[in-house]
Amino acid sequence: MASSSSSDSTAPQTPQLRKDSVTNRWVIFSPARAKRPSDFKSKSPINPNQQHQQQCPFCIGHEHECAPEIFRVPPDNPDWKLRVIQNLYPALSRDIPAAEEGNHSDSGRVVVNGFGFHDVVIETPVHSVQLSDLSPREIGEVLVAHTRRIKQLMSYDSIKYVQVFKNHGASAGASMSHSHSQIMALPVVPPAVATRLGSMKEYFEQTGKCSVCESNSKDLLIDVSAHFISIVPFAATFPFEMWIIPLDHSSHFHELDSEKAVELGGLLKLVLRKMSLQLNNPPFNFMVQTSPLGDNASQLPYSHWFMQIVPQLSVVAGFEMGTGCYINPVFPEDAAKVLREVKVSP
Amino acid sequence: MASSSSSDSTAPQTPQLRKDSVTNRWVIFSPARAKRPSDFKSKSPINPNQQHQQQCPFCIGHEHECAPEIFRVPPDNPDWKLRVIQNLYPALSRDIPAAEEGNHSDSGRVVVNGFGFHDVVIETPVHSVQLSDLSPREIGEVLVAHTRRIKQLMSYDSIKYVQVFKNHGASAGASMSHSHSQIMALPVVPPAVATRLGSMKEYFEQTGKCSVCESNSKDLLIDVSAHFISIVPFAATFPFEMWIIPLDHSSHFHELDSEKAVELGGLLKLVLRKMSLQLNNPPFNFMVQTSPLGDNASQLPYSHWFMQIVPQLSVVAGFEMGTGCYINPVFPEDAAKVLREVKVSP
Repeated sequence: MASSSSSDSTAPQTPQLRKDSVTNRWVIFSPARAKRPSDFKSKSPINPNQQHQQQCPFCIGHEHECAPEIFRVPPDNPDWKLRVIQNLYPALSRDIPAAEEGNHSDSGRVVVNGFGFHDVVIETPVHSVQLSDLSPREIGEVLVAHTRRIKQLMSYDSIKYVQVFKNHGASAGASMSHSHSQIMALPVVPPAVATRLGSMKEYFEQTGKCSVCESNSKDLLIDVSAHFISIVPFAATFPFEMWIIPLDHSSHFHELDSEKAVELGGLLKLVLRKMSLQLNNPPFNFMVQTSPLGDNASQLPYSHWFMQIVPQLSVVAGFEMGTGCYINPVFPEDAAKVLREVKVSP
Repeated sequence: MASSSSSDSTAPQTPQLRKDSVTNRWVIFSPARAKRPSDFKSKSPINPNQQHQQQCPFCIGHEHECAPEIFRVPPDNPDWKLRVIQNLYPALSRDIPAAEEGNHSDSGRVVVNGFGFHDVVIETPVHSVQLSDLSPREIGEVLVAHTRRIKQLMSYDSIKYVQVFKNHGASAGASMSHSHSQIMALPVVPPAVATRLGSMKEYFEQTGKCSVCESNSKDLLIDVSAHFISIVPFAATFPFEMWIIPLDHSSHFHELDSEKAVELGGLLKLVLRKMSLQLNNPPFNFMVQTSPLGDNASQLPYSHWFMQIVPQLSVVAGFEMGTGCYINPVFPEDAAKVLREVKVSP
């Protein structure tokens, strides 16, 4: 991975528009609208003590209240550590034909049958435990469960992309407070993924380089481990958005091996704890940004998976909905400096 | 405007993915996740009585607390009906060079000086009055103020696009409860606009037709006036999203004349009152979707402006952030039927 020798972090104090070659999306950096970067705090932090534990179907002993299980770890063990189950309210249906017969296009209107999978990963049997409370090894096991489920879903020809994501906190979209993530397998390549792939491919064709490999630079770095780095991206869409990137070029998240998964678990835990300490335990989302499944026969030289972590500190409003252009009050260099310097007790 | 002869509204009860040729964005329609369409209500309605009127700089008599005024209606009148002012916390700056000297590109990272304009339209002098309380003529005057300001901003060569939008309610992004809209003039064509223009152009090249002219159909129609219709779009991104479309092909919102503005004001008032009655006075956003300014020399055959109105009923979460693909629990045909049937007292 290239490391550019940028100078020390002195972010400009006038507004600036930035675009990178990964997301290919204009972001307006507008320091006039911000408090100091170190003063950002969530106004609606998650209070773990508020979580009611009664009648949670994700808790151990309540398995019969859930939709069918896909697998658990360890297998066949009532004393499970994590479970992958079907979503009781799936956005897509595994029970309708994936065949093209229902699909049609007329006057520019394209319709595709809603075939797909929507699964839930219960990350811990205990209601009060959050993902960042788990050990690196345990977080690694959650990540390996994601990759294992993706490999199962790859057997369906009509599945084009699998999105792994986590909503933490009601205002970040979580309907259950018990720690969980979700896996959605789609019959199309979704628009933001198509845009990202197209942009990365164009950059590769112009320069011979991978745009994600190029996204490391000293002033954007947060932390580093043997095979991963955490950074604030150059054109971060959201304040304090973070990416965890594998240092070795790899196009598909599901190629992660279990040893590196533990290392990634450790860096993810560090990122989540820093975010929680610095930003007052905000609701957050994380998303695995990977490559479409049809492309998995060979390693793609231009596409490089990463994990995106976004604390929920701002509201998406009319300007963003209208333009697809986001206003970020915190320059990435400033956010990275703040996050670099957070002290986390071991 | 073409009106396709779609059959009566019986939306399918299995999930479906849709894409139209305007936004070119996959949307998942997932009825399993929804209550009945007629049961949708905002959980955080706006209570007009909660609005404190003290110390509001947008109220009449507090003009000295605002950033500089651009114009007022009527002109030079202390008893104004609306004012267009600078935003006190602009996202872009009119005071930095628009010249290319600050702009640069390196390793796929593109930077543009944050030159631009960010204005506010105070829609009424009275704090407790909402946009939908105004008469069609008064709403028309607000819309004419938008077009007048766009025409001023067009004189700057470096301004490529002007976004008019309104955030109503704190959770829809409004920091002030006094009724206002915003105008942001940008030095780039923003990503969602570029995508929309590209998609509309492609459809035109394939069919010789304008995709927005084609978006009318009986089962998606809400209301109609002499020169405008309100519809739920075929691939609505959000539940109960509505578009108001001029029936005559027109590529730029700022070409709206003052007579049609009054008619549009009437239809917007009707849409807002229906939304408020049916959905429990939800926070909402509206966005004017128009064409870039560089293209204004001639009428574009493929690009057609419209107004997008989105009640805030759902949360943007990890799946949407990761994929750019939205999950809408309400089929557009069902939403249109519900909205068609709302009775509004004259």
